Amino acid sequence: MALKKAGVLGATGSVGQRFILLLADHPDFELSVLGASSRSAGKEYKDAVTWKQTSLLPKSAEKIVVSECTVEAFKDCDIVFSGLDADYAGPIEKAFVEAGLSVVSNAKNYRREVDVPLIVPIVNTEHLSAIEKKVTEAKAKTGKKPGFIVCISNCSTAGLVAPLKPLVDSFGPIDLLTTTTLQAISGAGFSPGFPGIDILDNIVPYISGEEEKIEWETKKILGGLNSEGTEFVPISDDEMKVSAQCNRVAVSDGHTECIALRFKNRPAPSVEAVKQCLRDYVCEATKLGCPSAPEHAIHVLEEPDRPQPRLDRDRDAGYGVSVGRIREDPVLDFKMVVLSHNTVIGAAGAGVLIGEILLAKNII
Amino acid sequence: MALKKAGVLGATGSVGQRFILLLADHPDFELSVLGASSRSAGKEYKDAVTWKQTSLLPKSAEKIVVSECTVEAFKDCDIVFSGLDADYAGPIEKAFVEAGLSVVSNAKNYRREVDVPLIVPIVNTEHLSAIEKKVTEAKAKTGKKPGFIVCISNCSTAGLVAPLKPLVDSFGPIDLLTTTTLQAISGAGFSPGFPGIDILDNIVPYISGEEEKIEWETKKILGGLNSEGTEFVPISDDEMKVSAQCNRVAVSDGHTECIALRFKNRPAPSVEAVKQCLRDYVCEATKLGCPSAPEHAIHVLEEPDRPQPRLDRDRDAGYGVSVGRIREDPVLDFKMVVLSHNTVIGAAGAGVLIGEILLAKNII
Amino acid sequence: MALKKAGVLGATGSVGQRFILLLADHPDFELSVLGASSRSAGKEYKDAVTWKQTSLLPKSAEKIVVSECTVEAFKDCDIVFSGLDADYAGPIEKAFVEAGLSVVSNAKNYRREVDVPLIVPIVNTEHLSAIEKKVTEAKAKTGKKPGFIVCISNCSTAGLVAPLKPLVDSFGPIDLLTTTTLQAISGAGFSPGFPGIDILDNIVPYISGEEEKIEWETKKILGGLNSEGTEFVPISDDEMKVSAQCNRVAVSDGHTECIALRFKNRPAPSVEAVKQCLRDYVCEATKLGCPSAPEHAIHVLEEPDRPQPRLDRDRDAGYGVSVGRIREDPVLDFKMVVLSHNTVIGAAGAGVLIGEILLAKNII
Amino acid sequence: MALKKAGVLGATGSVGQRFILLLADHPDFELSVLGASSRSAGKEYKDAVTWKQTSLLPKSAEKIVVSECTVEAFKDCDIVFSGLDADYAGPIEKAFVEAGLSVVSNAKNYRREVDVPLIVPIVNTEHLSAIEKKVTEAKAKTGKKPGFIVCISNCSTAGLVAPLKPLVDSFGPIDLLTTTTLQAISGAGFSPGFPGIDILDNIVPYISGEEEKIEWETKKILGGLNSEGTEFVPISDDEMKVSAQCNRVAVSDGHTECIALRFKNRPAPSVEAVKQCLRDYVCEATKLGCPSAPEHAIHVLEEPDRPQPRLDRDRDAGYGVSVGRIREDPVLDFKMVVLSHNTVIGAAGAGVLIGEILLAKNII
Repeated sequence: MALKKAGVLGATGSVGQRFILLLADHPDFELSVLGASSRSAGKEYKDAVTWKQTSLLPKSAEKIVVSECTVEAFKDCDIVFSGLDADYAGPIEKAFVEAGLSVVSNAKNYRREVDVPLIVPIVNTEHLSAIEKKVTEAKAKTGKKPGFIVCISNCSTAGLVAPLKPLVDSFGPIDLLTTTTLQAISGAGFSPGFPGIDILDNIVPYISGEEEKIEWETKKILGGLNSEGTEFVPISDDEMKVSAQCNRVAVSDGHTECIALRFKNRPAPSVEAVKQCLRDYVCEATKLGCPSAPEHAIHVLEEPDRPQPRLDRDRDAGYGVSVGRIREDPVLDFKMVVLSHNTVIGAAGAGVLIGEILLAKNII
Repeated sequence: MALKKAGVLGATGSVGQRFILLLADHPDFELSVLGASSRSAGKEYKDAVTWKQTSLLPKSAEKIVVSECTVEAFKDCDIVFSGLDADYAGPIEKAFVEAGLSVVSNAKNYRREVDVPLIVPIVNTEHLSAIEKKVTEAKAKTGKKPGFIVCISNCSTAGLVAPLKPLVDSFGPIDLLTTTTLQAISGAGFSPGFPGIDILDNIVPYISGEEEKIEWETKKILGGLNSEGTEFVPISDDEMKVSAQCNRVAVSDGHTECIALRFKNRPAPSVEAVKQCLRDYVCEATKLGCPSAPEHAIHVLEEPDRPQPRLDRDRDAGYGVSVGRIREDPVLDFKMVVLSHNTVIGAAGAGVLIGEILLAKNII
Repeated sequence: MALKKAGVLGATGSVGQRFILLLADHPDFELSVLGASSRSAGKEYKDAVTWKQTSLLPKSAEKIVVSECTVEAFKDCDIVFSGLDADYAGPIEKAFVEAGLSVVSNAKNYRREVDVPLIVPIVNTEHLSAIEKKVTEAKAKTGKKPGFIVCISNCSTAGLVAPLKPLVDSFGPIDLLTTTTLQAISGAGFSPGFPGIDILDNIVPYISGEEEKIEWETKKILGGLNSEGTEFVPISDDEMKVSAQCNRVAVSDGHTECIALRFKNRPAPSVEAVKQCLRDYVCEATKLGCPSAPEHAIHVLEEPDRPQPRLDRDRDAGYGVSVGRIREDPVLDFKMVVLSHNTVIGAAGAGVLIGEILLAKNII
Repeated sequence: MALKKAGVLGATGSVGQRFILLLADHPDFELSVLGASSRSAGKEYKDAVTWKQTSLLPKSAEKIVVSECTVEAFKDCDIVFSGLDADYAGPIEKAFVEAGLSVVSNAKNYRREVDVPLIVPIVNTEHLSAIEKKVTEAKAKTGKKPGFIVCISNCSTAGLVAPLKPLVDSFGPIDLLTTTTLQAISGAGFSPGFPGIDILDNIVPYISGEEEKIEWETKKILGGLNSEGTEFVPISDDEMKVSAQCNRVAVSDGHTECIALRFKNRPAPSVEAVKQCLRDYVCEATKLGCPSAPEHAIHVLEEPDRPQPRLDRDRDAGYGVSVGRIREDPVLDFKMVVLSHNTVIGAAGAGVLIGEILLAKNII
């Protein structure tokens, strides 16, 4: 099968670099267009980028000449992955969609749009049905595939909802949910990124906007669609209360979250039932055979002191979420520790897997 | 006034070294006896200890000849501060009390005894009334001051209860309380202490026994006494549910806790009332004029990203607890971030301030 | 004696904040004018600054209204301490000197001027004679004290030359000198400062311009004056070869340097003679009784694993340099480890002590 | 070809775990016997080990029943990799050799034996000729392959000598060599390993015995054999002077060394010639096609701020050494920064590659 042409917006930034790492030798996609600011445009990628990944810059990307982020430059792409900063993403992504392009974006700008799916690819791929429907209907009508955008969730939301999805599917709604996060600094990018002096022998108990994102995105991702299947209906604040407390800690990659939850239904399941439910979970991406899909979307750890970011963040190449210390909670029903790789399942990696799912579902 | 003779048990360990730092040039106490293992006994302190403090070993302690931890060696002490490991503290402290000595201990061994006060010196000094009563009655009866022990609380409990005390005094009981801790490694001592490889680019979401300590000690510290004033009556599990999740992070000193709480009484106070209550709090040790008592037992911070351990742990020489990000919580009533200095208000420093309070109250 | 009026240029930056901490309750100086960018000018200092020190913002500085960095604003200052970035320092400091002000600067701009003393205040205070002469002569001629500038050395140079000075005084010239530095990140300031991702589980073996500074400044500081006593004559490259390799490491404060040196004269002294020479060293600032002068400018440590930044950087409030592991070197004569506090003796602290020395010598 | 049976001594320790990771699915070897203390013997490996690697415990090793470290248990092994601590390695390894076993050891005990090769497998594989000769002669005489031991070098020596070898081969002897190391903590193992409190916001400028190892081992590795080809003749102290200063820093894996060197021959080569020599280097293991041999044993980096441990330690799976900042040195001829992966090319990884070379040369 011919490879799908992939473009990357914001190619020199931290998320863009991760997209390039993941797409460079991908079985489904070929890196076709790299877009960056006009400062970089016209240069070979290797000369435009300050490469800061632990793997070498892939040979196949080195000599691609960087374009500006225009529709014209990307018009032949089958899919466009956006690593743009929120400051720039808004109008560019809008123009791309209007021009008929298929965009998977890491930016926060359109996450709250009522007809834009907010996807964690090991969690709520059923939400892509709204796009599928839109594409099918438009094709039937106009003969042309329409543009659309799929948003990647916030990184700390991704880890949080991973274990919640199978639990809700098995045991019914969660009505109270708390998470205290210990978040890695890689999410803050690297120009300049998170200041060293703030993280050395220190923690910062605040990440601007993060708590609000978790509290809201969780309700959209675990929510449903309207009866037409075209718009997303988040769980209401009355049905589920979510509280997040976010901290930045001295970890390079891997967000740890200490979560607690209460099910609406009584009696609550047993600890063992919760564990078994998580162990049994197989996400749709895995069933579809997507190349990046994890063998196990969720790893249940039994050691008392796990998961730990340095030891566990790379399970299934970062696409597997680790859950440990599952136990009863004196205040809610259960508490547990969730670890997810923020730049994989929480950012560029999620984007690539979403792309694979779109392809597997014939949406692109 | 003549200085009170102070002894230190476990003088070469990490808690013992802190006791020595704080007592060496103290206005009320003079370092009189230093007890350690038989390996150290007989040596001058400077030769027995591997000094690992950021301040130099005080001159006045250098040449004290280390004793074994026997009643005989400490018999002339007006007060004995114990930094012994729990593995050794049990029988030694018991023997000291039986011999009539006044012991302030950092070990966990006797914290749950029904007639032993568990004290955070900026919080529940009224609990010392049980000792005062015991001493007064024994003196009246026998003419002799009896031995007793006062326990210092667990380090992460100390920070947690500091803001809770004035809140409960003002707004009535708390019925639900959660804390997720991000704890410094200094609490783990230093021979060998917490492994570097476990804390470098990592967190460990588990501290053995810590969650249980927090959940139980909070109920004793915030609880009362029986009608005779001789035994402690912790708040029951029905009245207050407490849930702790404990993490070890890459911080040298200073425990950060993301807490949330619900008051029993409705309506809950306003955020501003909560802040004002905390700002107004003056602890008894401050009123008594104890030399180590903080000017402000609680510092309410308004900056959105504070408290931070590196910047805020040394308020009032570590005796002041910082509370920030006080805000409403979607699940309980309020959430906030509490920072306390674990080796000061959470360990040796608490011990010394307890000693000062005992002196101010004429109990020693 | 009336306090001298002190101004601070660049008052909101990292060096400026340290100046303010040190000057706020100083026995000789009173904080009089605080200069910053036009963005800050007109605000009270507490509202203009993002205070990032471990000590609280001094009360006496809180309400000072920030000025722009103009001669007019500072014209009544007896001394001006400059924490300006090199990008701004050049013309501002020049204008101040021309207007007759006495400037002590942390910026690098004028360090290489032939008539500007480059001072490490525990090392080469005799170099201030050039200023003394200039001031005396100008006063004799014009009746007015002229403006002048004294430069603070680069931070890693300061630690390096501290032990070299007494050694050269005792044993004659050093002809070969190597240093490999492990430098703290605080020197990089904090907006944005050194990136966290570059220092977490990492070192960066490069600091732009730093090696050149060390290699050149050492020769000026250890060098002499011309016969008129008006110009500085650095040691020539032929007389002394200096090689520096600079690394940024995960340390907040405190530069560690692994140095090695060879004396020109044969035979070389013994290790014990070297140690004794360092132990015996008393710097002029100490003899003058300057308030910030260290009791011991150099601390010779005998423990095999010291000095360590966390444990030893605060000796004499950061004005004392620690030297350990003094031993013979198979390639040169001796090797040793030198630790100095980069923001004290290597930056603002040095500036304040220079100010005290200028006062003690009646130059201001 | 049938897989060679491999045994691992010290299988539960940090070096042993790395051996198991590397051997578990190896194309040449099969994990056959795992030896540990009597406390572990008799248990399945997964139950005996506290696995602390970032990769999961290989399935193929999980159920191997751990043996004691006796000749009897290992007698069928074609090769034995020893990760034993020096405290235990001496008599066990001796017994194994006497029993005819082929041992590759990470312990320091026999490194200085005159007939034991000390091998960095990307550097001095020609030294294996002494073993080849011994084996050939013994077989000829007795018909039986004799036992022997090959020692892996100290970790910081391995990185240092990697660039030196091609330089000496091209430009003749080095007469002066200095290295200041910034060493990772993983080398210190993990029970208990290096204390966290010593590495948090700190460096420790001392590693017991390390400087002596570097200074001596370098001379053996770069030295030759006697005329019979049976004994190793280190370079004499007169011919080459080596000076090491060793520091422990907050890095998990990867030793950085700031080195400087002087060639004996004049004139010294140009910087470009030095770089080209390093770029051109192909080690014998690569030529032999060993599975773990690096494509590039040496990577020459041109970016001014590289190599950095987090970004560059994994080149060629840790078997490639990175060299950057190659430049003239004012004191010696050249200075440069060398980065090597201490647990790969400096420990277990080196052992496995030595095993592959022994196999490729038909020595086992």
